[in-house]
Amino acid sequence: METVKVAFLGHGNVCGGACQILKDNKDLIESRIHKRIEITHILVSDATKHRKWPTLGATLTTDFEDILNSDSDVVVEALGGIEPAAQYMERCLDLGKHVVTANKAALAAHFDKLHQVSARSDAMLLFEAAVGGGIPALSAILGNLRGNKFIEISGILNGTTNYILTKMASDSSSYQEVLKKAQELGFAEADPTADVEGIDAANKLSILMAIAFNDYINPESIPTIGISNITETDIKAASDEGKKIKLIASAKVKNSAEGSLLEYFVKPVPIGPDHPLYGVDNEYNGILVKGDAVEDVMMYGKGAGPLPTGSAIVGDILKIAERL
Amino acid sequence: METVKVAFLGHGNVCGGACQILKDNKDLIESRIHKRIEITHILVSDATKHRKWPTLGATLTTDFEDILNSDSDVVVEALGGIEPAAQYMERCLDLGKHVVTANKAALAAHFDKLHQVSARSDAMLLFEAAVGGGIPALSAILGNLRGNKFIEISGILNGTTNYILTKMASDSSSYQEVLKKAQELGFAEADPTADVEGIDAANKLSILMAIAFNDYINPESIPTIGISNITETDIKAASDEGKKIKLIASAKVKNSAEGSLLEYFVKPVPIGPDHPLYGVDNEYNGILVKGDAVEDVMMYGKGAGPLPTGSAIVGDILKIAERL
Repeated sequence: METVKVAFLGHGNVCGGACQILKDNKDLIESRIHKRIEITHILVSDATKHRKWPTLGATLTTDFEDILNSDSDVVVEALGGIEPAAQYMERCLDLGKHVVTANKAALAAHFDKLHQVSARSDAMLLFEAAVGGGIPALSAILGNLRGNKFIEISGILNGTTNYILTKMASDSSSYQEVLKKAQELGFAEADPTADVEGIDAANKLSILMAIAFNDYINPESIPTIGISNITETDIKAASDEGKKIKLIASAKVKNSAEGSLLEYFVKPVPIGPDHPLYGVDNEYNGILVKGDAVEDVMMYGKGAGPLPTGSAIVGDILKIAERL
Repeated sequence: METVKVAFLGHGNVCGGACQILKDNKDLIESRIHKRIEITHILVSDATKHRKWPTLGATLTTDFEDILNSDSDVVVEALGGIEPAAQYMERCLDLGKHVVTANKAALAAHFDKLHQVSARSDAMLLFEAAVGGGIPALSAILGNLRGNKFIEISGILNGTTNYILTKMASDSSSYQEVLKKAQELGFAEADPTADVEGIDAANKLSILMAIAFNDYINPESIPTIGISNITETDIKAASDEGKKIKLIASAKVKNSAEGSLLEYFVKPVPIGPDHPLYGVDNEYNGILVKGDAVEDVMMYGKGAGPLPTGSAIVGDILKIAERL
């Protein structure tokens, strides 16, 4: 059986979850793709630290050059943050290594650049885990739905804010109270800015627009309003009309006499039971895709977490493995 | 630009919808896959009849041998019924022609046989349109979710029965009244047996089980109860408990001391608001996939109709075109 060699940049919850799946479902995966997946190296910040997740016999290193010099066919990046992640991905692609990333911030900031290097060196760049965790939405947009002219992509793309908004409504609590509780439960980070101010959702929307509309918009240019100013009164007013306030990331094609224009935003919107995203509560994500042929398709699932996100990473690794 | 040649078996709503999309989105599709799709032949029952859908310059023929003798790379089958469709697909695959089908009855009846011929002659067999219309569920199960051990696949897989059950509840009408109305509106066929007795849903469940659990069960061996005996009293009793009766097709892995066992059925089930398929009403379909890593993923969309089903067909054609 042929072996596909994979290196990981990072070994936190995302790469760790992927390693766990590759361990637990090894036989099943080999029976499905008729190839063996071998983890050669893992880039970590401290190679002596106790590891929460399986390392699968890989060499742990703190030196990125070891990854570049390895004979890995695929490099999985989940370092988080824009740099050095973007630079690392570029260097791997440039060497002809296929890249799988979960890093929406780095990808959204350098979408065009990374794709140019990928095209030039004929190395694949896959990123299902960067949007909607385990939900296979990007694979659908770039795959079976590709005969469609897309008209709209809207979604609840951030689990932390969806959890906070859901709890504010169900427990009649204030934003600050629920945020504190979410932080205690691990649903929100110590510095929640990127989530609650809509920056994370804007990064994801930028990626969705780039693939669905072939229109890359830097996330900083997306009009973005977060949820930190949402009050109990706002939630109550929506609820009195039978609605829920959701942090919606949306891009729609508007046709006019001057041609078609893409309208996009991230902001809190009250939605009613007729909206396909109305039932997406707690830490779940939902992505609505409207195409001229398929009409509405809605996909729903866990938008975060080691194993759901790991599922998307492993799916991308297997796609590359099959094509090699 | 390279040309991929496609022949169609049938030119009704399914093949017609696909032809419409290939016409409307020609430039967009070419820009996405960098190949041209040419329709060489269409097999019809009467080549002189007025055509509702575009024929895109194809030669219309009533003779299947013309399809076999054509230089088409891909054959799309949407004749409906088991024979001669299954036999035609087998002969095309045997000649090395890739096959795309929307025909759940023929595929479910001969799943293993058709896959054996496909493997032997290295010709692809794709069938996204056979289950859930435009919803890209099979592509997800066979694609990005492939790192998962699947635990459950459940769905509302038949639009006609879902429409009837939704209307019985909303209009407090009898099964017979709603069926008659659905037939007038074109949501139910003149002979509705395959839909209302659950046969169509069983065919689709058989296909889902084969791909998710690698376990082909002939649809005739799936315990199947349709909706023709559901009364207004049943609907009312469910509604009084806050539930809706849905025709659920389901397969679940049950683990016991003796090993794991697949439990499966098609039957009307009352489900409450906590069930992910609760919001799937009218002619919509919904498919819930549970994997050991990704947890719950739900996909929702139009399960039938020329353009949604055509979207799935075109998606499969483009997948083959890219790989050629």
